[in-house]
Amino acid sequence: MIRISSRALNDLALITTGAFAPVTRFMTFDEARAVVDGLALPSGEVWPIPILLQTDDLPHDTTLTLVHGDAVAGSMRLIEAFPIPRREWAKKIYGTDDEAHPGVAAFYRGGAYAISGEVEWRADRRLVANGTAWDTAGEVRAEIARRGWSRITGFQTRNPIHRAHEYVLRVALEVSDGLLIHPLIGETKADDIPAEVRLRCYDALLRAYFPLERVLFTPLPAWMRYAGPREAVLHAIVRRNYGCTRFIIGRDHAGVGSWYGPYDAQTLVSSLDLGIEPLFFDEVFYCARCRGVASAKTCGHPPSDRLLLSGTQVRQLLRDGAALPEEFTRPEVAEVLRESFARELVDA
Amino acid sequence: MIRISSRALNDLALITTGAFAPVTRFMTFDEARAVVDGLALPSGEVWPIPILLQTDDLPHDTTLTLVHGDAVAGSMRLIEAFPIPRREWAKKIYGTDDEAHPGVAAFYRGGAYAISGEVEWRADRRLVANGTAWDTAGEVRAEIARRGWSRITGFQTRNPIHRAHEYVLRVALEVSDGLLIHPLIGETKADDIPAEVRLRCYDALLRAYFPLERVLFTPLPAWMRYAGPREAVLHAIVRRNYGCTRFIIGRDHAGVGSWYGPYDAQTLVSSLDLGIEPLFFDEVFYCARCRGVASAKTCGHPPSDRLLLSGTQVRQLLRDGAALPEEFTRPEVAEVLRESFARELVDA
Repeated sequence: MIRISSRALNDLALITTGAFAPVTRFMTFDEARAVVDGLALPSGEVWPIPILLQTDDLPHDTTLTLVHGDAVAGSMRLIEAFPIPRREWAKKIYGTDDEAHPGVAAFYRGGAYAISGEVEWRADRRLVANGTAWDTAGEVRAEIARRGWSRITGFQTRNPIHRAHEYVLRVALEVSDGLLIHPLIGETKADDIPAEVRLRCYDALLRAYFPLERVLFTPLPAWMRYAGPREAVLHAIVRRNYGCTRFIIGRDHAGVGSWYGPYDAQTLVSSLDLGIEPLFFDEVFYCARCRGVASAKTCGHPPSDRLLLSGTQVRQLLRDGAALPEEFTRPEVAEVLRESFARELVDA
Repeated sequence: MIRISSRALNDLALITTGAFAPVTRFMTFDEARAVVDGLALPSGEVWPIPILLQTDDLPHDTTLTLVHGDAVAGSMRLIEAFPIPRREWAKKIYGTDDEAHPGVAAFYRGGAYAISGEVEWRADRRLVANGTAWDTAGEVRAEIARRGWSRITGFQTRNPIHRAHEYVLRVALEVSDGLLIHPLIGETKADDIPAEVRLRCYDALLRAYFPLERVLFTPLPAWMRYAGPREAVLHAIVRRNYGCTRFIIGRDHAGVGSWYGPYDAQTLVSSLDLGIEPLFFDEVFYCARCRGVASAKTCGHPPSDRLLLSGTQVRQLLRDGAALPEEFTRPEVAEVLRESFARELVDA
């Protein structure tokens, strides 16, 4: 028996449902090293980040029960256990070995060893999503086939949806048969907005503004590594496995702080053949001259005409109980955020 | 010597500058018949509409000087002359042999014979464009290479640009490195807005709103056949030859009246391999709930929330001297239209 973290539980769910194809197990040392050093599996297929079952306790058996909290989540037939060269790998995966980086910190905290092997999922699927329903890669692919879509754009986000996101989604939907709105609901850094609130924001926006017959909306039980460029590659591969033909990559995708340049992720993704077409977006803002949302790609006006509202600013406005301007947040979404922040302040 | 119409002059300019590649001459009977019957040249390459030098006067020489107005435009080495089966071909090209269709009427008026042969251009290039400068396919391709663009979307229009066009252009520009705004300036039906006014509208819009370094703007000396689906294919091929990788096809592209279904052009184009990716757009409108321009692909609201402003309505508002609402026409463009309509009313 071995206890696994919520992050490992996420990975277990994604491995066993085909979201991580062609990866079908927690990686061996050789597999992980090939990925870290060469951005590819030993087979040559592109893979950006090792999928490791980290632990501090070495197992005594070759067949292991994987337990999360009180629940049996799955089982593993052990192949090997190995010490993780964490500092060396952190530098290559995250571009830094500084534990001020939240992804690096989680990597260091996660355990000194990795145990690798074939795995099976053995619990109710909702165990991985705090009781929330979610669709597997196979289920989404089947639904895409049923709807007859051939151009499907995937959208990953860990933030509440605002007008900038809506703009990107509208642009993508104009040139696609359908969208997969695929918010990540696994572990994120403590100051990110809780998954439950984010899901309600997406739901409010989609219901109020989008043609629902052209949108699939399901959460993805994955955690944020904040690994920037390499994580953008992982996000794209997962959406390819979910049946998407295109994947939206914004500015500083999967980044945090100023660890990565704003276009590093786009540069890395455009250098690789991932079997999915990236749709790159620039910073999106409200432009007073355009009288609407636009980006530097489409707006010819100077920065003084543009209003950028950062996530931090939105948070501050919410804490102050101030109204969120409609240029940035649809009233339906602002209402969800206001409610949840009011609750949070009461709880605090 | 043979006198040629402004339509033939357009075709001569496009043939001799590579815009009609792989077509390099006015078509022979066998070539034209293959195109009419099979939507392809005898070589098998897709081609939708015969490029004919129509005349009522059979030539006496094998080397012909092609004269337009007072000017020598070019020369031809005659291959053959043949009577055009106009009714039969009209039915296949335009879907009708009714001369109430303006393209069919022009075809009937154009001459009973076609003379085919290799041609050369011999005049100042501006002869074909009423003195306006225009860039050839080779020049635009060279500029695209100089700018390092790899995803270029072409936009064809014969109408003054309004917010619906702007919306489509913005969407395309978000997913492209650059746009080719390529308005057609050859013969159109009498009640279309004059090319000179349209060019000033595009210029006003681009200067006031778009990032000019991401836009190429040059007129195309081509005439409207109003052949709907087949002409959409021709428009796409010409833009491929101009270096575009994508081409925008809207609702009822190159249509007129109700001769074609609104999506016939999109259906035909998507069934063919043209070497250029079509970007299909639906009807675009202002939606009061979205508080912006949207299409049925992206807006989830009922028709009662949507305001469609037709070209006819715009024309009526202009004739009445009424203001064009900003939801439909940018003030900079409205100003150009207002001025030109005031002049037209004075002239009338």
